[in-house]
Formats: sequence, C-alpha cells, structure tokens
Amino acid sequence: MKAAQVTGYHHKLELRDVDEPKITGPFDVVVKIGAAGVCRTDIHILEGQWAEKSGVTLPYTIGHENAGWVHAVGDAVTNVAVGDKVILHPLMTCGLCRACRLGDDVHCENSRFPGIDTHGGYAEYLLTSARSCVKLDDSLEPAGVAALADAGLTAQHAAAKAAAFLRPGEVCVIIGAGGLGHIGIQCMKAMSAATLVVVDRNPAALELARQVGADVTVVADGDHVNEVLEVTGGHGAEAVIDFVGEGGSTAEGVRMLRRAGNYYVVGYGENINVPTIDIISTEINFIGNLVGSYTDLQDLMVLAAQGKVKLHTARYGLEEFQLAIDDLNAGKVRGRAILVP
Amino acid sequence: MKAAQVTGYHHKLELRDVDEPKITGPFDVVVKIGAAGVCRTDIHILEGQWAEKSGVTLPYTIGHENAGWVHAVGDAVTNVAVGDKVILHPLMTCGLCRACRLGDDVHCENSRFPGIDTHGGYAEYLLTSARSCVKLDDSLEPAGVAALADAGLTAQHAAAKAAAFLRPGEVCVIIGAGGLGHIGIQCMKAMSAATLVVVDRNPAALELARQVGADVTVVADGDHVNEVLEVTGGHGAEAVIDFVGEGGSTAEGVRMLRRAGNYYVVGYGENINVPTIDIISTEINFIGNLVGSYTDLQDLMVLAAQGKVKLHTARYGLEEFQLAIDDLNAGKVRGRAILVP
Amino acid sequence: MKAAQVTGYHHKLELRDVDEPKITGPFDVVVKIGAAGVCRTDIHILEGQWAEKSGVTLPYTIGHENAGWVHAVGDAVTNVAVGDKVILHPLMTCGLCRACRLGDDVHCENSRFPGIDTHGGYAEYLLTSARSCVKLDDSLEPAGVAALADAGLTAQHAAAKAAAFLRPGEVCVIIGAGGLGHIGIQCMKAMSAATLVVVDRNPAALELARQVGADVTVVADGDHVNEVLEVTGGHGAEAVIDFVGEGGSTAEGVRMLRRAGNYYVVGYGENINVPTIDIISTEINFIGNLVGSYTDLQDLMVLAAQGKVKLHTARYGLEEFQLAIDDLNAGKVRGRAILVP
Amino acid sequence: MKAAQVTGYHHKLELRDVDEPKITGPFDVVVKIGAAGVCRTDIHILEGQWAEKSGVTLPYTIGHENAGWVHAVGDAVTNVAVGDKVILHPLMTCGLCRACRLGDDVHCENSRFPGIDTHGGYAEYLLTSARSCVKLDDSLEPAGVAALADAGLTAQHAAAKAAAFLRPGEVCVIIGAGGLGHIGIQCMKAMSAATLVVVDRNPAALELARQVGADVTVVADGDHVNEVLEVTGGHGAEAVIDFVGEGGSTAEGVRMLRRAGNYYVVGYGENINVPTIDIISTEINFIGNLVGSYTDLQDLMVLAAQGKVKLHTARYGLEEFQLAIDDLNAGKVRGRAILVP
Repeated sequence: MKAAQVTGYHHKLELRDVDEPKITGPFDVVVKIGAAGVCRTDIHILEGQWAEKSGVTLPYTIGHENAGWVHAVGDAVTNVAVGDKVILHPLMTCGLCRACRLGDDVHCENSRFPGIDTHGGYAEYLLTSARSCVKLDDSLEPAGVAALADAGLTAQHAAAKAAAFLRPGEVCVIIGAGGLGHIGIQCMKAMSAATLVVVDRNPAALELARQVGADVTVVADGDHVNEVLEVTGGHGAEAVIDFVGEGGSTAEGVRMLRRAGNYYVVGYGENINVPTIDIISTEINFIGNLVGSYTDLQDLMVLAAQGKVKLHTARYGLEEFQLAIDDLNAGKVRGRAILVP
Repeated sequence: MKAAQVTGYHHKLELRDVDEPKITGPFDVVVKIGAAGVCRTDIHILEGQWAEKSGVTLPYTIGHENAGWVHAVGDAVTNVAVGDKVILHPLMTCGLCRACRLGDDVHCENSRFPGIDTHGGYAEYLLTSARSCVKLDDSLEPAGVAALADAGLTAQHAAAKAAAFLRPGEVCVIIGAGGLGHIGIQCMKAMSAATLVVVDRNPAALELARQVGADVTVVADGDHVNEVLEVTGGHGAEAVIDFVGEGGSTAEGVRMLRRAGNYYVVGYGENINVPTIDIISTEINFIGNLVGSYTDLQDLMVLAAQGKVKLHTARYGLEEFQLAIDDLNAGKVRGRAILVP
Repeated sequence: MKAAQVTGYHHKLELRDVDEPKITGPFDVVVKIGAAGVCRTDIHILEGQWAEKSGVTLPYTIGHENAGWVHAVGDAVTNVAVGDKVILHPLMTCGLCRACRLGDDVHCENSRFPGIDTHGGYAEYLLTSARSCVKLDDSLEPAGVAALADAGLTAQHAAAKAAAFLRPGEVCVIIGAGGLGHIGIQCMKAMSAATLVVVDRNPAALELARQVGADVTVVADGDHVNEVLEVTGGHGAEAVIDFVGEGGSTAEGVRMLRRAGNYYVVGYGENINVPTIDIISTEINFIGNLVGSYTDLQDLMVLAAQGKVKLHTARYGLEEFQLAIDDLNAGKVRGRAILVP
Repeated sequence: MKAAQVTGYHHKLELRDVDEPKITGPFDVVVKIGAAGVCRTDIHILEGQWAEKSGVTLPYTIGHENAGWVHAVGDAVTNVAVGDKVILHPLMTCGLCRACRLGDDVHCENSRFPGIDTHGGYAEYLLTSARSCVKLDDSLEPAGVAALADAGLTAQHAAAKAAAFLRPGEVCVIIGAGGLGHIGIQCMKAMSAATLVVVDRNPAALELARQVGADVTVVADGDHVNEVLEVTGGHGAEAVIDFVGEGGSTAEGVRMLRRAGNYYVVGYGENINVPTIDIISTEINFIGNLVGSYTDLQDLMVLAAQGKVKLHTARYGLEEFQLAIDDLNAGKVRGRAILVP
C-alpha cells in the first residue's frame, strides 16, 4: 500500500510502497483509512522535535487523527466488525492498568500512539486496537470527523471539565478561537448555559467564534484584560480555558480569573509563573488538560451527530500530503486539512 | 391594601382590606407585588388539605409564587434596594442553621413559607426577607417570571441534578409535559446535551414539548414503556424525571430505566413500591426533589434572561382571583395563571 | 482435578473428578485455588433459586468468592504472572463496552459470573480472566481474603459511596451487623469520620460491631427507631446503609433518615414502599448497591493490607464442603466459612 | 477592658485600657475571650506587612484565632445564647452575597477579618457576628481549640479537599510537618485511608508526624524527591499538600507528583513556575487553598471532639503577649502559643 513516511528529520515526507498491516494479536484491528487529519504536530515531527521523546525508528508513517472503515479484526474483537465506520482514539491502551480500569485510559501505563511512536494514518491502512475504535453514527462520515480525533478531542475534554463546574450565566473565558478554540466553544455551548467570552487577536477568528456560540468577543489588542473584567462586573470569570499558553496569555488569563476560579491549561509554550500568595489568597486552581479519554471521544461523536459540533475541513488526496503541509505552514487552511487516500 | 384571603376552608377566597405589611426586623423586605402565580396548591389549601400541616391561623393571604418591586427594607438589608425588580424565593430561611450555611437553604431548620404558613402574595404588598429576594435582569419583568418562583424552580432543580450526571447522547425520559415538565425540558436543553424523550398522555402537550426541546415524544397510550425501551436500544434511559408520580407512572417509569440509572421523583401521589432485589440487581437510584435553593432560583432567572426558559402566562387582575381559580380548575389555563394587582 | 459440583437441584453437591481448565483465549488465566468462600447464595443455588436466572448447564462447579495463585496465563496477559497471589473479582468482564470503558465494569454488558453461570472455585483450579485478577500484597494470603471477594466487596462498595458524602460527625446508621455489616463498619471507619450507629437484633453482633468501630449500638427491640432519632437530636441520620432489606427494616430505616438523607439499599427481600409525597417533602434518596468494581476490590485489598479490614474465617478442606454448608445452615459459622483445597 | 494593641508599625504591641465592645447590630455577638492564638501573621502585622492591604486604622487590637464564651447577643441572633462556649470563624461574612449563599463564605464579597482589618482577640472581649460563632462540644474548652480557628482551619480545609479524591492506599505527600502540617496529617488520617508520606527538614518534626499518623517520613536532605518516588514505585503521589511554598519546595513537590495528580498550594512565598508543556503532558492540577468555611470549622471541631485532632498549646496570660511573641520568634514554642486573658 502507499504511505507517506518520515525517512529522515529535516526532510520532506516520502510516499512509499509498504506492506499492508496484518492482524497478529487478538485485539488487533486494521482500518482502511477514510481520512487523516494534518496537524501542526506532524510538522514538528519532521523538524525532529519528537525524535528523542517518541524513540521511534525511521522510516515510519505519521498521521494521528484517523477515521475510516474496519478492514480486519483479531479473534477477541467484539465491539466492531468488518465494514464498520470508525474514528480512532489517538492512543492504543492496555485495558489492564489501574488508569484504564478507572476509565482514565489517557493515563494508561502501557499505551502506544500511532503516528507518533508507531505507524500512523497517512496511508491506505492502519493497524490499531479494538480499544481505540469508536463506531460512527450513520449520519457521520470518516472524512467529516477524522480531524476531531486528537485536536477536537482535546478541546472537548477541557470543555467537559469546565462545563461540569459552571452554572448558568457564570462566565467562561476562552483564550484562542483557532482550531481547538472553536471546537471548545461549540462543546461548551452544547453542555452548559455558561456565558462564553472569547478572546483572540484575530477579528476573523472572533467572527467565526460568534457564529459557533460566543456570547461576547474581545479582541486581544492590549486592553483585553480590562474588557473581560468589565464584562464580569469587575469580578473576573469563573473559568478561563487557555488554548494558547504562550506569548503572555497565561499572565493575562490569570488576571481575568475570579476568586475561586479555575484556569484550564490546554495550549502550551510558556510557563505558568504565579506567586503562591496570589494562588492562595484568591484560592484559584490551575487544571492541566491532555487529550480526552475513549468515552470522551464517544461523547464528541454524539455532539457531532447531533449537529452541535461542526468542523470545516479542506480535503487533499493522500499523494497531496506535501501541498497540505505547505498550505498549513502558509496559514492557507481554513478549518483543518485532511488527507483522503 | 387589598388581599385575597382564606377566611375558612371549603369556602371561596374573599377580597379584603387589610393593613399593609411593615418593616420590623433588620432583614425584612416589603415587596409591591407585580404578579402572583395561581397554583393548584392554592386550590388544595382552600380544600383544607394544608390546614393541619401548615398550622396557619385564618384569615390569611395565599399566593406563594411572587415577584414585584422592593417597596421598603430593614436596616441590615444590603442585597436589594427600594425600587429593585425582584422575584421571591418561596421560603424565608434563617441563614444560620447548618443547612443554610451549606447553601442547602431549602432544608433550613427555621423556615417560613409565605402563602402557606404566613401571608402570601395575592395582595398589593408582601412581607418577606432579604434572603428571599433575587434581583431581576433588566430584560425581565415580574409578571413574566412570577410563576417560575415555585413550580418552575422545582423543575429547574430536578433538571440541574439530572443534567450533572448526563453525558451527551445519554437519555433522559421526562414523564409529564405539563407546567413543570415543559420548564424541565427547557432547563435540561440549556444545561446538557442529553437526548430528551418526553412521555405524556396528551398529544397537544407533546407538541409543545417538541417546540421547547424534546428530541423524541411518546404518547402514553399503553405501549409507551416499550417505545421508550426501543428508543434506547433496549437498554433503558440513564435518567427518568417523573413530574407525574401517580396513576401508575412510577412503576412504568422504573421499567424505562437503564442499569445504574437515576429516577428523579418530582410529582407525587402514589407510592414508590419496588422490590429491593430489583433495586440492587440493577443498582438504580431514586432521587427525591423538592423546590430549588436560592442559588437555583438565581440560575433559573439567568436562563430566563438568556431566553432559554420561557413560560406562557394568562393574566388576571387581583380582583379576578376567582375567575383564575375557576379557569385553572376547568383546565382552561394555557401555561400558568398569574394575578396582577 | 477434584471439584464440588451441582449435579441436580435439591440434591447435595458431589465431589467429582473433572478436567483441569485450560488456557484457550488471550486473556485467560487459570488460578490454583487457595480458598473459596462458602456463601448463602451457594445454598440458594442448590435449592434451584438461580437455575432459570443463570441458565447454567449441569453439572457445574459453584464457588464465587475465590483467591489463589496464578497457574497459567494467555498470550495477552500482562498484569499478572504465573505464581502471583491473587484475589478474583467475581465477574469476568469484556473491557470493551461503554460501562467497562467508564470504569463501571460491574455493569458490563457481556459479563460472566464464575460459580453462578459458569464453573466456580469449589475446585483445585479455576478458569478466569486477566481482568478479574487483583494481585495481593505480600502481607496477605488467599485464605485470609477469599471471602471478601463478593460479600466483602459489596459492603466496601456501599460504604465507599456513603463515605463520599459524609462529613465528620454526620451520622451513618448501619442496619445489620452480620457478615456484610461488620465489613461495612470497618470500611466506613477507615474512609470517613462519620459517627457510626449500628442496629441489630443480636447483642452479640453489636458487641462485635463495637470492637470493629461502631460508635453507638442499638438493639433492634422495637424502640430502636426512636433510639436512633434520639442519638441524632431528633433530626435523623444523614445516611442509612441497610444490609438487611427484609422483615420491615426498610420502613424502619426510612424513619431514621434526616431530610436530604441517603438510604443505601444493600440487603434485599422486601419492597421499598414509600409515598412519593414523603420522598419529595424530605428530599431523600434511595441508592441501590450491587457488588463493587474491579478498582473497588483493589481498594478493599489495600484496606486489608493496612490492617483496617479484618475478617474471621472458619477453614474447611475442599472435601469437607458438606460440613461447611451444614454449619452455615445451622448458624455455627463465626465470620465466613472457606474451603481450602 | 485590657487589650494588646498595635499603636504603630515596627513598634511593640501595647497593653491599653479600651472600651468594651457593645452590641449595635441585630447579628452582633460579644464574646468573652477564653484564648487567642498567637500566630506568625501577628508578627508580620507589627512589621507593617499588612498595613496597606488591610487598610486598618491604628491603634487596633490584633488576634485572629479566638475562642471564648458568648457575653451578649443582638436581637436577631438565634444560633447562640449568652454563656455558650464558642470558637470563632476568622471572617465575619454577610450571608447575602452569592458566595455566602453557596456555602462558600470564605469568598464573601463583604467580609471583615477581626485581628486583621478590625479589632481582634488579644483582649478581654471581642465583637463578632452570629455567623462566625461555632458552638463547642461539652468536651472542648476555648483554650484547647482557639489556635485551630485559622491555621488549623486552613490545614483542615486543604486536607478535606485532598481526602475527597484519595482512595485507599493512594499516596498523599505532605510537605512541612510544622503547625499546619501536623494538623493536616491528623485530618487526612481521620477522613481517608490514603498513605501519608511526610517530608520535612527537621527530624523532630517528622517524629511528631509519625506519632500523629504519618505512614512514611522522609527527611528533606537533598535526596528526598527520589525517596518519595521510590515509595510510590516510581510513579509519584496522587496528591501533594505543600504547607511550605518557599525555598524550592514547589519545584521539588511537582517532581513528586504522579500523572493526573493534584498539587495543593497552602504555604506561600515563592512562585509556582512550571512549563505549561509539563502541566498538560502529565495533566496535573494546582489547587489553591485559603482558610476553610464556617462548616469546615464545624467539621474541625467535630474532629477535635472525637479526639482525632489534637493540638499542643503553650499558655501565656494576656499581659504576657510580648513573651509569647518573643518565644514564637525564637522558635521556643512547641505547638501553638495562646493568650489567656
């Protein structure tokens, strides 16, 4: 089959002919790829940023946001059958460690991550596990949802955590209305009656934010902290979800927070650097957020099937991988790019 | 001032001239009534059903769903000022007992209940407490929300409890799409992405249910339990909110419940009568629901101001109280009747 | 190997020579039995009470409270190795359904129950799943803990649910200080600072209750509801855990409950039969309780290893199964009987 | 009456004759001081560190950990009566703002803080509010518990938050076994079955820690992070409660944390300074902790009455305030110093 592979760092991907994956274990599932999301992380992989951390051996196939159709299954697979439409949770988890047994499979002690530390979905077929397969509703297609598998799932996970604590009219500030942010806005809107205040430097992003559910938008033009405080009657917001995490966003975000408020860290880059006296005197919390669990992905697919979470995608053929990457690098992609084999 | 009073049980109310209430305590608030909801409980009071339980001395003014404008305040009142538009929580609570200190003021050990055990709002003015006053948003008027003060608040409280446990696409059956039910549907819709299946005997009520957010409606025609089970793939619903509680609804409702599901008891009349073996083998729960707390009423007013909870009201002058009661008795009131002095 | 099998209902068990179980699936584990608890359910099986419900084919081996040493493992087993000391969760669960993925494996849609619907542990070896095996701390032995695998786990699960809601000094009434009750007392004591009021008809059981942590004991002699109310200043208890569930215990237990209190149903026999008006006017809840999850069993083994949960056991050889059953029937067993092959 | 007052910053306190406080408001309570805790914050006040923040006018009486007997009450006070033994919550709260109504009175929008921004308890009598008075159990005396009113309450509050998430055998690291730490250890022990690992530089403090419930103690001698990791099998602890918050404790503490773990910030001084990439990739949380609420103080008094929380106190007469402060400064006080008028 064809696969776009990393053959060396600081090189471009190469389209190569490789063997199709085979079922060898009882829970193995081979998926015919319907679409694979193209993510900024893929560019970072090519730059070698993940080389040491992942420990992967080259060449290998990247692509960690995958959906498609079940092509073959191992003996013990009971939750999906050949032909099923599926989206794939980004992690292959063991199901036996304490974290898995608690339903917190993102913290599995024995997980693998296709597209990062083993072959991913920039290919015609992908080997995964029964534990990673979420069946799609009849109304959904792999190409429409693939790009939700990792970035979207991260946004949904953070939004679900925040929504659980927000009562009607309490304020949730969302910093960053880009790829993750606009999914987060839709998830919050679907799961809570909180007031959503969205902050971004880009007026066009804020226009999209309003279309998908923002109640108030604030341009990050230097006075945005004060504007947010005004919206909240001077008290600050009960929650801030920071999808940026760099360029000073965390220091600003903390100033937007109300006493006893929660700061959800999603984007990353800079440090959280806050005096302990400020943390204790206002009793604020900082909540880390990784990708969502398997059941979070089920929930996100429900929201997609309900029409409450929509994602704009730009389609490329598998062989157009370089164009997709170039467009992403050039900021030309509206929504998320996907490769469709 | 004029007040519609109970002068004897099994009699009609009488419109009488009585003294205006005066401020005597530090937290007293006198409210000029903007509207008072007319509730089936008022009819039960006249029938003497509450005589012993409330221990009230006749004559007294009924009306326990009240909103209006602050007319006078005691020395220690800081949360409202004369002229403020307010809706009144149905209970006057002490603020000092353990329940009040926990924010669970509905279980206050020293509460009074205007319209039930002390003078209520079928009058021009009402004496209440600062602790009962919730300020209204500019966009709301007393007449538009008064009828939410007790019945609506009960529905909101049950819905909030259920919403806290329901993930997207999980099923909540709502039994009864009447006065409380259609508020409950709107609250659930605003606070969760659960799938709402509404059951009622009356097709017209189900039509309204669809308009305010029901995803699926089922006519209670004898085969409704099976229909609900079909909707849920045979598993049953994660939650049932029973706004009826009589005529066999509870036995049917329990059959609609999934393993580990929650049954919210709101309507009352018959007994919950379920074998303990069934409760433990499916690990289901029965959750009692009284009226909501003060902060629940704040939340409900937010939902109203957001336009997410709407209530149809039929207006009557204070002196038309008998017509309102007759219309309610005759089933002629669409939505909720209110008296406007 | 030798196994005590049901060969017909209303017959005694028979000790038979049967084939040792073999590994056939990837997650199979064969355990050399160290001890199997003898439970009243085993007597009910012989009486045919479970015949229809379980659908099991005779002859088969009973015994659903098992612990021992891992004897053989399937290819995909990574959490235990041959030689490990283990206690077995009573259910073999699929790991793939939504309930399993949420960590709520007791509600697995595809579970089997060794000793009930497939071969159990009254034998030298037992076939189970990797997902059922909890490794034992060095300080624990299979014979010491086997009888905690089902009955003890049920008590722990109910206690953990109750402890999560009980603040220091809030009152938990425990009805029934027998096998489950005295484990429940120890679990509550380990996990909360609630005041434990234990009610039983048997003064000797109450003496044991005091030794393992009861703060107050009340003999169920007819005036016990009033005595409990007195202990709680007339308010009733924040929680009642009912390990009896028959002979009128539920009606009495509900009267012991405080407003907004939780009634944990564990024992079974009679109906919960309570007017809905009482449920809503006091806003009480009824919480069903089945056996605990896999992680609950891990927790219980921690409490055992910490020395906080202790169980008195009476040992019998495997071939003495009839004596153990007779002693249990005659009320001669102090603590729990176990068969040690 | 006599009162030890701040008459200028960088001066010593002066014992002065001042008027006894009088009842003027409906919820006022005058308490005859039984004991007032001497706290390091009192020294900071004298150094002027709080001058700007508190905005207090000199001279004024300090002392923010107070207990005694009710001496006089306002008209609306129903929860205590003259002669009652009470401990005082450090804040006087309004009871009307949203935070108060939610039971989260520590975040009251209108609170005052006797001993900080108004007259405190280094005196014979103190003016407070009914909302601050917690009645003491017969078994407790003001002098035995006064020093729990603020420092102890902070420790209890943090411990209660942590205990709510800790299952049996999960590890809670406690950094700092001083005044707050040793109360925190006792609270954790009373409310959870977590394994407590206590870290301190001082071997004598660790000896005390073991006596009050530490399961493992680790001397902070440079290799302590590794030692904690070893105790947790290399995974780190589910929770770290940091009662130090300076001198590098937070950077070390974060390294002790398991994936998805919670870091409770109690002590203060340095900054939390952690890369967002580390926060999100391990999904850890930082939880701020201020003093506990009114109901937390009720809980702490229950734990004290149960004998589960004990505090060693060193008594000084009111007129010996300078000796008490000097002893505290010199590190000569074992446990907590109190002034007994």
